Amino acid sequence: MNIPTVFWLVPVASVVALSMAYLFFTQMMKADEGTPRMREIALYVRKGAMAYLRQQYRVVTIVFVVLCALFAFMAYGLHVQNPWVPFAFLTGGFFSGLAGFFGMKTATYASARTANAARESLDAGLKIAFRSGAVMGLTVVGLGLLDIAIWFVVLNQFDADGLISITTTMLTFGMGASTQALFARVGGGIYTKAADVGADIVGKVEADIPEDDPRNPATIADNVGDNVGDVAGMGADLYESYCGSVLSTAALGASAFAASAVDGMQIKAVIAPMIIAAVGVFLSLLGIFLVRTKEGATMRDLLRSLSLGTNISAVLIAIATFAILYLLGIDNWLGLSFSVISGLAAGVIIGQATEYYTSHSYKPTQKISEAGQTGAATVIIKGIGTGMISTCIPVITIGVAIMLSYLCANGFDLSMSSTSLAHGLYGIGIAAVGMLSTLGITLATDAYGPIADNAGGNAEMSSLGEAVRHRTDALDALGNTTAATGKGFAIGSAALTALALLASYIEEIKIAMVRAGQTLTNVSGDVIAASNATIPDFMNYFQVNLMNPKVLVGAFIGAMAAFLFCGMTMEAVGRAAEKMVQEVRRQFREIAGILEGTGTPDYGRCVEISTRAAQHEMIIPSILAIIIPIIVGIVLGVAGVLGLLVGGLAGGFTLAVFMANAGGAWDNAKKNIEEGNFGGKGSFAHKACIVGDTVGDPFKDTSGPSLNILIKLMSMVSIVMAGLTVAFA
Amino acid sequence: MNIPTVFWLVPVASVVALSMAYLFFTQMMKADEGTPRMREIALYVRKGAMAYLRQQYRVVTIVFVVLCALFAFMAYGLHVQNPWVPFAFLTGGFFSGLAGFFGMKTATYASARTANAARESLDAGLKIAFRSGAVMGLTVVGLGLLDIAIWFVVLNQFDADGLISITTTMLTFGMGASTQALFARVGGGIYTKAADVGADIVGKVEADIPEDDPRNPATIADNVGDNVGDVAGMGADLYESYCGSVLSTAALGASAFAASAVDGMQIKAVIAPMIIAAVGVFLSLLGIFLVRTKEGATMRDLLRSLSLGTNISAVLIAIATFAILYLLGIDNWLGLSFSVISGLAAGVIIGQATEYYTSHSYKPTQKISEAGQTGAATVIIKGIGTGMISTCIPVITIGVAIMLSYLCANGFDLSMSSTSLAHGLYGIGIAAVGMLSTLGITLATDAYGPIADNAGGNAEMSSLGEAVRHRTDALDALGNTTAATGKGFAIGSAALTALALLASYIEEIKIAMVRAGQTLTNVSGDVIAASNATIPDFMNYFQVNLMNPKVLVGAFIGAMAAFLFCGMTMEAVGRAAEKMVQEVRRQFREIAGILEGTGTPDYGRCVEISTRAAQHEMIIPSILAIIIPIIVGIVLGVAGVLGLLVGGLAGGFTLAVFMANAGGAWDNAKKNIEEGNFGGKGSFAHKACIVGDTVGDPFKDTSGPSLNILIKLMSMVSIVMAGLTVAFA
Repeated sequence: MNIPTVFWLVPVASVVALSMAYLFFTQMMKADEGTPRMREIALYVRKGAMAYLRQQYRVVTIVFVVLCALFAFMAYGLHVQNPWVPFAFLTGGFFSGLAGFFGMKTATYASARTANAARESLDAGLKIAFRSGAVMGLTVVGLGLLDIAIWFVVLNQFDADGLISITTTMLTFGMGASTQALFARVGGGIYTKAADVGADIVGKVEADIPEDDPRNPATIADNVGDNVGDVAGMGADLYESYCGSVLSTAALGASAFAASAVDGMQIKAVIAPMIIAAVGVFLSLLGIFLVRTKEGATMRDLLRSLSLGTNISAVLIAIATFAILYLLGIDNWLGLSFSVISGLAAGVIIGQATEYYTSHSYKPTQKISEAGQTGAATVIIKGIGTGMISTCIPVITIGVAIMLSYLCANGFDLSMSSTSLAHGLYGIGIAAVGMLSTLGITLATDAYGPIADNAGGNAEMSSLGEAVRHRTDALDALGNTTAATGKGFAIGSAALTALALLASYIEEIKIAMVRAGQTLTNVSGDVIAASNATIPDFMNYFQVNLMNPKVLVGAFIGAMAAFLFCGMTMEAVGRAAEKMVQEVRRQFREIAGILEGTGTPDYGRCVEISTRAAQHEMIIPSILAIIIPIIVGIVLGVAGVLGLLVGGLAGGFTLAVFMANAGGAWDNAKKNIEEGNFGGKGSFAHKACIVGDTVGDPFKDTSGPSLNILIKLMSMVSIVMAGLTVAFA
Repeated sequence: MNIPTVFWLVPVASVVALSMAYLFFTQMMKADEGTPRMREIALYVRKGAMAYLRQQYRVVTIVFVVLCALFAFMAYGLHVQNPWVPFAFLTGGFFSGLAGFFGMKTATYASARTANAARESLDAGLKIAFRSGAVMGLTVVGLGLLDIAIWFVVLNQFDADGLISITTTMLTFGMGASTQALFARVGGGIYTKAADVGADIVGKVEADIPEDDPRNPATIADNVGDNVGDVAGMGADLYESYCGSVLSTAALGASAFAASAVDGMQIKAVIAPMIIAAVGVFLSLLGIFLVRTKEGATMRDLLRSLSLGTNISAVLIAIATFAILYLLGIDNWLGLSFSVISGLAAGVIIGQATEYYTSHSYKPTQKISEAGQTGAATVIIKGIGTGMISTCIPVITIGVAIMLSYLCANGFDLSMSSTSLAHGLYGIGIAAVGMLSTLGITLATDAYGPIADNAGGNAEMSSLGEAVRHRTDALDALGNTTAATGKGFAIGSAALTALALLASYIEEIKIAMVRAGQTLTNVSGDVIAASNATIPDFMNYFQVNLMNPKVLVGAFIGAMAAFLFCGMTMEAVGRAAEKMVQEVRRQFREIAGILEGTGTPDYGRCVEISTRAAQHEMIIPSILAIIIPIIVGIVLGVAGVLGLLVGGLAGGFTLAVFMANAGGAWDNAKKNIEEGNFGGKGSFAHKACIVGDTVGDPFKDTSGPSLNILIKLMSMVSIVMAGLTVAFA
């Protein structure tokens, strides 16, 4: 098939993104890493992080080998899957891991340099930290577009079954990325929170020493954790989201425009999300360059500068979408552009709501701080209450965005005819792409937070004094404020992408039926080819209706899977944190002079505890996410799987928002007290809020963010395993 | 229509149950209430409880008047609802309230008497407490069957539209019961937990005085709370479950057997669940009489005696079902009996799983106690983890029970034809009825717990000494152990009943369409009467398929509604508890000599705080449960409502199990420590576990149990409002 020339913008954007990432990296490396003590600490952290990542990749490699063998058997033995699938799966996993690896490498080199720059000025610190964050942002989008472009060209050359087959095969590489991302998020999340919780409980609560104090044996593990969890884990996560949204939308485009009378319309619909993403790269770059301040900038200036960068990118992509879709000449380009607008608007609203419920500038979090005066129990009760209530706005916003992007894309057609449905779903997909298209910059604002945080750790451990620490804290806080919109986009796009994947699942089942030589009976009772089945035909044939007990049981299991997964990761953090607490207590007890600063703690043991815990504990929950859809597919068939995915999506999304926001609110309720409210540091209320913050750690950094991946991974597994379901269910 | 003679067993059972309840009540009243001090305290508690209940009924009355006016307008103004609906709604609410009222009245008279009997022996204490619990159990089933019997006879006389119309109209009285129950559970739950949390935080944690110590100003409020929450709230709740299961199954029977060629088969199917429930009353009575022990019985004997009573009733109802369905001559009586068996088995398994995850005889709870050694944060993390993991077995069990009861009832027919579906759903309904049929005794074992608990409070406040308190504690613990099966039945039947209500919703939409003179297009494209529509026709016409964005948005909102509701009730408890803490602290500070036992605390102020908090805070969450389905119905139509109900059911059920089990596990983790493990009472671990217990209080006694009602109420509201949806959506 002829690929339109404009497609080449995609590899170009990829190369530009990767080149700029490399440029920023070399610039950052030129900066001074500071005193010997600072270098030493940075080296410790870097070594610990790399050591962990090696372990994680070892475990993940085994999983990938097993799954790959399974796919190879499905493709070449059972002939129930496309022969390209095993390879696509591998590259997705590989690139996702690479994105995390590069991001983390950069972060571990940047932290001491940021601390050193912060000795000079706030502005200098921002520059290093933000540019290093941008390395991550650009690497993720660059690698994502590279993988997409390569596979699209290769499959176009060799897969003769047309664009529907090509795009659904490409989803396999989404599954590879999701699998890698889930391990990275879960493993990294357990690592970082075991260390963080352990360090906080003994350090802050029991021994009354500050965060990142070098006397705390868990402090290096804590800083390593920030890198493997908040940087490498997040990198793999957003790589997965980014690719997932583009790939699922491409697949929807292929089926929505399969019957278009206009020549080339189908391929245009397939590449449209890729082009939007590619243009997003350039706009992100523009935004990144806009983030610069003059010497002696105040916090206000910095904030304005950061917001300016992200907001301009977002506004420009909204405008650019109209131009891209118009110039591509896609049917109903205007409607589709409004779909993107509704997605972007939803992201902004979700971001604002998140901000409202989790920032201590607003009532809900302030009330949690206030509850600290009556103890830890009321802090926990209020935090859970706030988190649960905070699900309301995001869910309703996503609901409205789903309806609007659907209706804009199909000309406000509620008939549920096959065409109107397909076009509507394509609109939902493209809205998700719009939300993630400026990931280059939104991820930069997200990733620079942990870098600043680590810089703070480095400053504390190197005893650079209060002023430097204050500056790095300010940078960190700044990141939290600007990251809200980015988080809104990430959460919102996950829901929309997961929804788009439902449609891809149906397409893949049809493909699998054609491959297996199966036909189906349409609603009028005629036997037809699976590829000709309309949605009502499909739903009727597979009895996918809400009174079918299989669908209902599937929905129950889907919602339960989200809880089970969170429960397992919470328990994992709890177990590891307990071990960490006991180890830190043991060191305080057995190694003389630690608390006086004369004895040296054994940092290595704590690093080892986190590493081992993460490595062991990430396996079962992650495998579960892969196995549940396979079992449900075989036992309950297509109807059960669709129930599972809808139950998992509705339950999992809500649970994810709850956990993320409760965790965020607890974190900031504690910070609010540390700023001197309700008794300030060391007060009764402060101790109570530290308990809240500690509980919130795995909520917001382990279980919550993993759920977004889980939801999509379950869909991707179902899609890739469709052949098995068709053959055996 | 001719009502078969066997139906009269239902009113007979009702009268027998109520008479026995009265008999037990008078027997209990004859017992000595103990010392003047004991009488005084019991009077305080009784007055407080009654005062609160009056307030609650006042609020609920307003809500009922408004809803009743709305229904009257729908029935007589818009003609979109059956004219009997407003009256049926009222009686349901009235009887539900009455069940709670009588139960609570009995409990408040029984507590001092139980304490007094416990001065004599464990056995004597058990007798009073258990028989008083039986008053509640028998009142609930007696009033339930009375209301059902009366309405069935009345409507049979006056409603000429046949059994489908009669049974769906009767569901309105289910809605009345659910509305009352939700207010009772939420209001009572907020009341009791505000007092409990407040009393524990200041009393146990800060002032280091024991539970129920008369020096604690919140102690009377706490004891009042046990009565209004755990007794009156639970009574209204189980009244709702009991009636809901019978009524929804009757409605399913009416539609499943509407086209039966055998004369009278339809009415047999309608009364079958009533007959099973009626027979269950007699078997419960048998079980209640079996609970008796000899003088000087040991704990082991008592436990055996209690288990014997409940188990024999459960086994006998299983056997009796075969006989009942065979003698009634229902089609496929054998299959339907096996449906009941699968329901009962599921209830037992869920009960055992609950026991495993929440009893400190097993690992999960022990691990939470152990986590106490590293502080409150790890206790909370582990408890949440355990609660989330504990959702797995109940959800899978319910899934299997749904499939089995469905398939047994329709002869293992997976075709989803209208007949097979209707029969299968009837099987699911009748399984739920089987689980609740022995409610007379299971509720007795449940309700006697709070009575024993209150007796303990009375003993403590009257300074009856350690030995008496030990005995009442033992009785309470005994109740917790035997209540597991009953709880399993209650949770399981809620899920099955909610599922059955989905089908009733579809029936009611059809009725509403017929009433509005609307027709629909079937899958073949022909225009047919709504009453003739098959499930595929219906699903196709209303586009209820899993790719319809309305269904998906509905599912999102359903899951969110469960979280929002829990969040609001959690916050309510948190707010009220904070006020309570401040009040108790104030009294300790301002009233001289309280802690030395020379000053008298102002109990009344604490009672007032709880009363006012419950009264204010119960309104919004409860109203929300009624309004959400109405709005979704009007905005998103039938497809959206079905999505809402499925999302609410899957998400809400899982959330309910999580909250109940996490709360239970925290409670017992604390008790485990109090038995001397991990440092025992007063240790660091104990303080940490008290935080867990306090957080768990609203989990297990406010938010969690209310969810079961919420799920069903949303379905009932949808059913009753179907006319509006048809007219305006």
